[in-house]
Amino acid sequence: MSGFVGLKVFAPATVANVAVGYDILGFAINGPGDEIKIYPGKEPGLKIRAIHGAENKLPKDINKNTAGVSAQALLEHLGKTEEPIELEIYKKMPFASGMGSSAASAVAGAFAVNEYFGCPLSKRELLPFVMKGEEAADGAYHADNVAPSLLGGIVLIRNNEEHDVIKLPSPYGIYAVVVHPNISILTAESRSVLSDTISLNQMIEQTGNIAAFVASLYRSDFELLQRSLNDVIIEPQRAKLIPHFYDLKEIALKEKALGFSISGAGPSLFALCQNSLVAENVAASLVKHLKQNKIESQAYISLINGEGAVKL
Amino acid sequence: MSGFVGLKVFAPATVANVAVGYDILGFAINGPGDEIKIYPGKEPGLKIRAIHGAENKLPKDINKNTAGVSAQALLEHLGKTEEPIELEIYKKMPFASGMGSSAASAVAGAFAVNEYFGCPLSKRELLPFVMKGEEAADGAYHADNVAPSLLGGIVLIRNNEEHDVIKLPSPYGIYAVVVHPNISILTAESRSVLSDTISLNQMIEQTGNIAAFVASLYRSDFELLQRSLNDVIIEPQRAKLIPHFYDLKEIALKEKALGFSISGAGPSLFALCQNSLVAENVAASLVKHLKQNKIESQAYISLINGEGAVKL
Repeated sequence: MSGFVGLKVFAPATVANVAVGYDILGFAINGPGDEIKIYPGKEPGLKIRAIHGAENKLPKDINKNTAGVSAQALLEHLGKTEEPIELEIYKKMPFASGMGSSAASAVAGAFAVNEYFGCPLSKRELLPFVMKGEEAADGAYHADNVAPSLLGGIVLIRNNEEHDVIKLPSPYGIYAVVVHPNISILTAESRSVLSDTISLNQMIEQTGNIAAFVASLYRSDFELLQRSLNDVIIEPQRAKLIPHFYDLKEIALKEKALGFSISGAGPSLFALCQNSLVAENVAASLVKHLKQNKIESQAYISLINGEGAVKL
Repeated sequence: MSGFVGLKVFAPATVANVAVGYDILGFAINGPGDEIKIYPGKEPGLKIRAIHGAENKLPKDINKNTAGVSAQALLEHLGKTEEPIELEIYKKMPFASGMGSSAASAVAGAFAVNEYFGCPLSKRELLPFVMKGEEAADGAYHADNVAPSLLGGIVLIRNNEEHDVIKLPSPYGIYAVVVHPNISILTAESRSVLSDTISLNQMIEQTGNIAAFVASLYRSDFELLQRSLNDVIIEPQRAKLIPHFYDLKEIALKEKALGFSISGAGPSLFALCQNSLVAENVAASLVKHLKQNKIESQAYISLINGEGAVKL
């Protein structure tokens, strides 16, 4: 590797759950996301040289940092743990936002290592390693953020343990709006409000909606998508954690969003929209309403990101 | 209508639930099914002249018979309740079998009336009327048997009250085996064994499977279909009502069925198979095993019926 100065990768933010797919659906957006530089180090082994944009909130220990854990897991698999490698992490998205910040880091870490060694593994083969990184941050071995960040698109997780993930079609022209209000909710808190049980009738309604949502993507049927994007289980329990949730939902739907719900564990919110004009109106109205209620926010407007992690 | 001697229609048997779609999925098979003759009567109003093949087990009262109820509901809608009309019903499939016997009658009744008057409504517009017939037999207003019997194919019910049903693609060459063991289970009994609540983790697993099942149909991906056809909620609770259920399942999967579970509320069982040879092997092995255990049974092998109710 003499003379090789390294490379840089990007892994995008993601929206998990997508209203009707609690723990089984997620999609990637074009930005924001995390960037990681990988280059030859001076001593054997992996080291995180710097983390930019994190205000000392993230550990540089490779066994604790999500990017470090996924990178190291892949290095072990490749038998390259003695290679002198350094990572420089550029956090370019908010933490604990419900936009898959830890997932983007986990994806970027392993993806960078794979690119560094000339792509010995396919993207899909990286999934177990990035899931290990996510597990380090989150305590759960799940792919609903890492799979779309890695692979791009709208991704269905049939089964986490089996790494059985299916890339669903993204209907042409569909736009996502993600709004991040500057309030904080811990994932643990967001999980603790959820009941361990649901009724059989709720399950029937939810399964009808998730099945119809998948069909709507294959059919590019926006009306069906709109009717399907209706979470009767998780959203009603979590809405109370997000100030003005139902007002915001009403505003988004009035502006003709196809659907609106909580992104991941919140507090970010997302809407799916039929075109960029609707998306811009939805984003502006949501930000305005939050501001009127003294909550600053950032809005991101994006086509569904079909590519996932990329070398820059 | 002078000189008009009437006509005959057929509505097919159906498999509801389809393992992962409790109350939201069903598909039609080519046979068996119910036939109804409709012709001009002598006095004003609807009358059921005869029911063949039912051994006096079904009511001839048009307000109680499922075919009568759906036919009458449509006649009311059309403003034709004073027309002299007679129905002759040919029950050509077993009762209380889990194969949608009452649904086939309900479909045939309204479908016959619609054909009789030159098809004033489309097939899809008949749905509310056939659902009323099914409700009379079953007490529940649901479409998981009537919709596929009417429309054909593999049908997803997103919402019963909204009549929001979606015809999913049937992958080319896929065969269904339905085996009806000659034992009886009442639908009420089959419902009473079901817990009113399920865990959140069960829901995650079931939603992953139903979503992947829908994707597998659009992709014609038999391997994904096989992985998805796994009911973690209803089947484990109902299996005990069907003698030798798990032995039969093992046999079906050993014979290379893509999946095997209970048809509707049982006792019929179904398997989906990649081709007719597998289907024949599965059917023969299931019938043989039941016979060895002193249970007679009938097996039906069929492509997915894409057409539903037809005029004969």
